[in-house]
Amino acid sequence: MQHNLSRRIERLVSSPVRDILAAIDKPGMISFAGGLPADDSFPTMVGSPDRGAMQYGPSEGEPKLRECIAEYLQKQGLTVDPSRVLVISGSQQGIDLVAKLVVDNGTGVAVESPTYLAALQVFSLFGARYMSMSVDQPELGLTGSNPSMLYTVPTFRNPDTICYDDEQRARIAATCDARDIILFEDDPYRDLAYEPCERTPICSLLKRTNWIYQGTLSKTLAPGLRLGFLVCSEPLYPYLLRLKQAADLHSSRVSQHYAIALLQADEDGTRIQTLCDSYRDRRDQFDAHLQTYFGSLATWGIPKGGLFFWLRLKSEQAIDTRVVLPDALRAGVVFMPGEPFHPDGRTASGTFRLNFSHASPSEVPRGLSTLAALFADVSAWDCVSL
Amino acid sequence: MQHNLSRRIERLVSSPVRDILAAIDKPGMISFAGGLPADDSFPTMVGSPDRGAMQYGPSEGEPKLRECIAEYLQKQGLTVDPSRVLVISGSQQGIDLVAKLVVDNGTGVAVESPTYLAALQVFSLFGARYMSMSVDQPELGLTGSNPSMLYTVPTFRNPDTICYDDEQRARIAATCDARDIILFEDDPYRDLAYEPCERTPICSLLKRTNWIYQGTLSKTLAPGLRLGFLVCSEPLYPYLLRLKQAADLHSSRVSQHYAIALLQADEDGTRIQTLCDSYRDRRDQFDAHLQTYFGSLATWGIPKGGLFFWLRLKSEQAIDTRVVLPDALRAGVVFMPGEPFHPDGRTASGTFRLNFSHASPSEVPRGLSTLAALFADVSAWDCVSL
Repeated sequence: MQHNLSRRIERLVSSPVRDILAAIDKPGMISFAGGLPADDSFPTMVGSPDRGAMQYGPSEGEPKLRECIAEYLQKQGLTVDPSRVLVISGSQQGIDLVAKLVVDNGTGVAVESPTYLAALQVFSLFGARYMSMSVDQPELGLTGSNPSMLYTVPTFRNPDTICYDDEQRARIAATCDARDIILFEDDPYRDLAYEPCERTPICSLLKRTNWIYQGTLSKTLAPGLRLGFLVCSEPLYPYLLRLKQAADLHSSRVSQHYAIALLQADEDGTRIQTLCDSYRDRRDQFDAHLQTYFGSLATWGIPKGGLFFWLRLKSEQAIDTRVVLPDALRAGVVFMPGEPFHPDGRTASGTFRLNFSHASPSEVPRGLSTLAALFADVSAWDCVSL
Repeated sequence: MQHNLSRRIERLVSSPVRDILAAIDKPGMISFAGGLPADDSFPTMVGSPDRGAMQYGPSEGEPKLRECIAEYLQKQGLTVDPSRVLVISGSQQGIDLVAKLVVDNGTGVAVESPTYLAALQVFSLFGARYMSMSVDQPELGLTGSNPSMLYTVPTFRNPDTICYDDEQRARIAATCDARDIILFEDDPYRDLAYEPCERTPICSLLKRTNWIYQGTLSKTLAPGLRLGFLVCSEPLYPYLLRLKQAADLHSSRVSQHYAIALLQADEDGTRIQTLCDSYRDRRDQFDAHLQTYFGSLATWGIPKGGLFFWLRLKSEQAIDTRVVLPDALRAGVVFMPGEPFHPDGRTASGTFRLNFSHASPSEVPRGLSTLAALFADVSAWDCVSL
């Protein structure tokens, strides 16, 4: 390592997400890796921002956008005043701000396993000590000292699309309240629901502890806008606002201009409903192709929402799915190995994640066929780990 | 303070910048406070971004924008390949990324006094221990252990618009090289030059130590885009790229779309030349009004570039200019007290900063007259500190 750098840089692991974002634009690459929306799902940006969008703006975000978000949250069962909404530069920024707010070197953070890998990356950068939780055990199975924070993606969890039922949600809320744990609820996929299921924000069930709830415009509008939002319990807002200001002053006003226009154009939710119908079809077609190519190799569930399938290899030996990635990239297919989603650093999970929203319908069978051949090869090896 | 928060939150001071951004939009407020470009200086955004701008993009930034920036830097005497350019969400984000890269609790950071207050705010958040430097002393007057990093705004420095000559620049470069100090050169105002003066990037003079150079599109294009850029010595790039990815994945592609179009529309620099001519006029008119209202109260120099006047009160007693701010806000005028620009936490600097680019020509005399009356009152007090 270079001289004069901070100690946290030793904890800055190369991110699979970044490597995959870098591979997306290669011509001919079939990507099952990122959580990329379908290219044909994007609404059209009409007109140009006026000069008002060019000056510095408020760190909190544009007032009209904050109102739209508060109205949206009200419909989801989370009542907050627009003054408690913070517009952020995508939900990745929310993770950075909350990590700054809570995580020192050695701070206990309760997380699921598997959970969103880019959250693990940021918490680790700040020195988090992970405590594993189990949503079906009393008090979530948390033993020993209390964690400072609990991070959860309760609705169509990335990577495995689990969606908690009402008892599980209530148990998380009760445990955070009883043990004075800050709840950080990350909810990027909630609007992409293809079957009825429980989606009440856990934060709306809390009685006393501090909390942060965040969502994003990346999955239902457009990730290129780089806009998300967070709301939180009243005592935390001034801190998060100052952290936002110190991070980038405020989010792009040009992006916010289009976000307001696009949200107002779909006030009755027709566009999102159409989007869900389209993604449900893609999911079902993807499942049919999976049965053809992976039926003998892996098991999986049908996701009720979100953008992923989570596959578990049938092979009796433990397989580190990262072994397959270099060959897959050479063959022009990208997928996401399962290992980085586990906070315990496990090396042979035998699991991997496939995105079904981004590859075109004609690419899907070709990509899955290529990938299945590689996994069949590896499953026949004697010993498979990195 | 709330339970369960990180220790760094104790160092998260309320930012005068944020408080002032919040006051900008109040109707009738005359602002001499922020570094806001003139509202009539902004170019027009034409057309709408295509769908390509709506998907996730590369963390490094759009290839075309990185090329434009590398070409621009080449003209300033800093030769870097476009692959070494990182597009960031305004230069405030660059400060956050570099602080993460270098600053642990207790890390020595050499800074000027006065210097950019929002940099001090971020370095302090991460626990920097400030070491004062003096550009006219041998080895910058740095005694004792070496700082890990030196932060400087050498060209039209914020707040006092100092611009270093070639000897001063060479001394900073030689000291960083000799003592293995990372140089962080922050250069937001370099294109706003109203008189000839030395502006060679200090980073271009370095022979061996690591460095980061950053600039912004906020002062010459539009701050609402929230775009800046950094370039650095080769070993630091992979770390800064990962930190950028962990912070917000990438900057708004919609903003980047317009930035590319606007930069290409002014390839010959005509627009920036016109902008400088207009700001030079504003500066001279502002100076004439200052002589009318502040001639007996303060001294100041004529800025050769940038967007500020830096005034020193003539009063023999030490005056904490923050004392005047609440009354000024009530009277509908905002200015920036000098105290927060000093890393030593001094409380009565007798200095303050006035921006001359944002208030309209008709507002300037009215605002200065109001402000001068308040400072005249305070200068007559016996004892003035917070």
